[in-house]
Amino acid sequence: MKVVKFGGSSVADANQLKKVTEIIRADRERKAIVVSAPGKRHAKDTKTTDLLITLGESVQAHVQNQAIYDQVIERFGSIIRELELDQSILEKIKNRIDEASDLVKTDVNRGMDALKSCGEDGTALILSAYLQTRELESYYVNPKEAGIFVSDQPGGALVLDESFEHLYKLREREGVLVIPGFFGYTLDDELVTFSRGGSDITGSIVAAGMKVDLYENFTDVDSVFCVNPMIVENPQQLKTLTYREMRELSYAGFSVFHDEALIPAFKEKIPVCIKNTNNPSGDGTMIVADLPEREGHVAGIASDSGFLNLYVSKYLMNREVGFGRKLLQILEEEEISFEHAPSGIDDMSVIIRDHQLPAEKEEVVKDRIQNELQVDMITIERNMAMIMIVGEGMNEAIGVASKATTAFRDADVNIDMINQGSSEVSMMFGIKSDDLNEAVRSLYKAFF
Amino acid sequence: MKVVKFGGSSVADANQLKKVTEIIRADRERKAIVVSAPGKRHAKDTKTTDLLITLGESVQAHVQNQAIYDQVIERFGSIIRELELDQSILEKIKNRIDEASDLVKTDVNRGMDALKSCGEDGTALILSAYLQTRELESYYVNPKEAGIFVSDQPGGALVLDESFEHLYKLREREGVLVIPGFFGYTLDDELVTFSRGGSDITGSIVAAGMKVDLYENFTDVDSVFCVNPMIVENPQQLKTLTYREMRELSYAGFSVFHDEALIPAFKEKIPVCIKNTNNPSGDGTMIVADLPEREGHVAGIASDSGFLNLYVSKYLMNREVGFGRKLLQILEEEEISFEHAPSGIDDMSVIIRDHQLPAEKEEVVKDRIQNELQVDMITIERNMAMIMIVGEGMNEAIGVASKATTAFRDADVNIDMINQGSSEVSMMFGIKSDDLNEAVRSLYKAFF
Repeated sequence: MKVVKFGGSSVADANQLKKVTEIIRADRERKAIVVSAPGKRHAKDTKTTDLLITLGESVQAHVQNQAIYDQVIERFGSIIRELELDQSILEKIKNRIDEASDLVKTDVNRGMDALKSCGEDGTALILSAYLQTRELESYYVNPKEAGIFVSDQPGGALVLDESFEHLYKLREREGVLVIPGFFGYTLDDELVTFSRGGSDITGSIVAAGMKVDLYENFTDVDSVFCVNPMIVENPQQLKTLTYREMRELSYAGFSVFHDEALIPAFKEKIPVCIKNTNNPSGDGTMIVADLPEREGHVAGIASDSGFLNLYVSKYLMNREVGFGRKLLQILEEEEISFEHAPSGIDDMSVIIRDHQLPAEKEEVVKDRIQNELQVDMITIERNMAMIMIVGEGMNEAIGVASKATTAFRDADVNIDMINQGSSEVSMMFGIKSDDLNEAVRSLYKAFF
Repeated sequence: MKVVKFGGSSVADANQLKKVTEIIRADRERKAIVVSAPGKRHAKDTKTTDLLITLGESVQAHVQNQAIYDQVIERFGSIIRELELDQSILEKIKNRIDEASDLVKTDVNRGMDALKSCGEDGTALILSAYLQTRELESYYVNPKEAGIFVSDQPGGALVLDESFEHLYKLREREGVLVIPGFFGYTLDDELVTFSRGGSDITGSIVAAGMKVDLYENFTDVDSVFCVNPMIVENPQQLKTLTYREMRELSYAGFSVFHDEALIPAFKEKIPVCIKNTNNPSGDGTMIVADLPEREGHVAGIASDSGFLNLYVSKYLMNREVGFGRKLLQILEEEEISFEHAPSGIDDMSVIIRDHQLPAEKEEVVKDRIQNELQVDMITIERNMAMIMIVGEGMNEAIGVASKATTAFRDADVNIDMINQGSSEVSMMFGIKSDDLNEAVRSLYKAFF
């Protein structure tokens, strides 16, 4: 039994929904289908969810925005027409949108959540109806009916444990079940949405609850690449990687999907397959719990810019018990989250994402560190990039560090920071942003 | 003008003191001489300070220990006889030892400090007298007279700022000034000792106070080696290194002297020269403020075993603000000082010296981390060694990391941890203790 999730581009128009239908028809194991709201049909298109948010904002501003309203309705209307479905479906979607808009006037949070959920809900209504016309027994299943109960945090709901039991019962249902992603209900019966990208969360929750054999996540890429294809042309595709590798790779640059969304599936050790709706016969990428057989020890190279290095030095720092802790505490009190903190004997670098420490906060932070820790020197260097080499068991392999650092040297790139702890599946390098592409290309050449 | 410090082996017997005298006579710039207590004359000998401590402990235990007492007196007696000095010097030393022993009975801390100081004091009395017989105008200068004022922390005194002004006045004094190391006086006129190895502290303080051109530290090695000579045979000697390099090298394995002792001299940017009493014409090693010209970028390789790796992993750790700080805080509360804390996305390694986390504390620490941080996994791996490659400007040089990691690979050694922050003068590697010698030899071959 499989749970299958289709992302926004997979349900962007009638033609895409036809592909989705064929995918579902091709494998009777595909029991529960989780869908996103219609996404972009072309580069300049607007996602349905963004249209719904704009609509909600005009309601909040007491502005009549007929154009946006018509646009939303037409997104669904055109799909329904092209799939030759009954117009009553459009009426249903329209009613939900109207009700949600009205709710925005009296309760902004509840109203906005209800309005945002109309995209996924509309897709689910349409797809379940279309599957029937293609001779598949299928049902629209509302998250409440499915038993997806969540905490009452509008726009950031967390699933409640009791949901999984309810979801397990879906195994007994007849036919194909089409469930709108992105939202659930509180125990008080209020609709609340997950964070953005929440259809991935729904998919993962449903897969975990139903304890299926496979969770398929259909998107618009053939597979996960071992390196950013914007930097290296036609890079190798990853056939298999582990949850941990996926998580490390997601950290920087590998934004195939919302990696945290996979936690429920990971906890149940359900394998996840990333596939392409536009090329369903491709192998895709499998994400599994256990180390796959693999040539070499490196699975992929992740990279991202937009980091800064906060550097402090103080003579005899390492004899001062609690220095590192105090430094991190100041950052915590200033609500700055850090990434890494490699330390020497008398100095410490703290790697922070640029946006965590905006320029206007710099002086405050520097002053506090200066005054409270009496450091000898403090500097902040922006324009840093991080490169991460990821692979299970890599750290048991002799020579990976050598190969990697030699690749940096060959690209004539100076390494500002190296961070590798034992038992970890990654090795991290900090370099100047300007050197990023050169370094990644050289690493790719060395490892793939 | 120079301040010269002679360590324990340089003043171990009459013959050594003759060498010391020739060294002082050879250069009239050698104005102030700081001396240790007589050290070991051969491998199985006992240091005078250790004899004095044993003596003090028997007094505390109300045990008459004539053998130890006689041994202490004979250490000084034999030197005085061989140098053909007046027996009144021995009487003076004996009186001080007797008074200090008496004081131990009524005030242990004060008494022990006074007793421990008798070694250095005796050397200074003897040397100043002997210099006179060798036609050098010379004076014994008690630390009180010199103006070395310290905090009232028995066995761990810290110098008070006003000392430096007093010491500056010593420049005006006639002749060669012989000052016993290791102790000073509180503003209330109480004798208090520095921590063990405190003659280096006195030397550095006197050099800083007198603002001399050079601080010479005579010991029993020709110079600082670029690698542990117990691991690599006849390694290269270091002609020059910077304060920062010295400090990093001292961290592990380079125990030529008490590196923290040098702080006062460093603060005044006084160059320090390490020389060998048994080979005074050798170049020695200069420790300076600014980067020396040097072939290659690496100054030395330090190494030490006796570390452990506390490893924790927790899914989504990096989204948890304050995780790293909380972990370090638990360690701080358990009075465990850590060395480094490299972190991955969802895990963190904390490198700790073995003795900081004794086996009986392990469970408490593990339980606290488990309960307070709800981690997924926690392991403690002992038998780790750390290797540090040190060199000013190394991090500006491309290819050092590559050379180093390739040396590990060539030695077939797996690297468990790498830690390098930007602007640092060192790069640190964690490996299994068993691999230490192989790795150091391979690194030496690569860099020297």
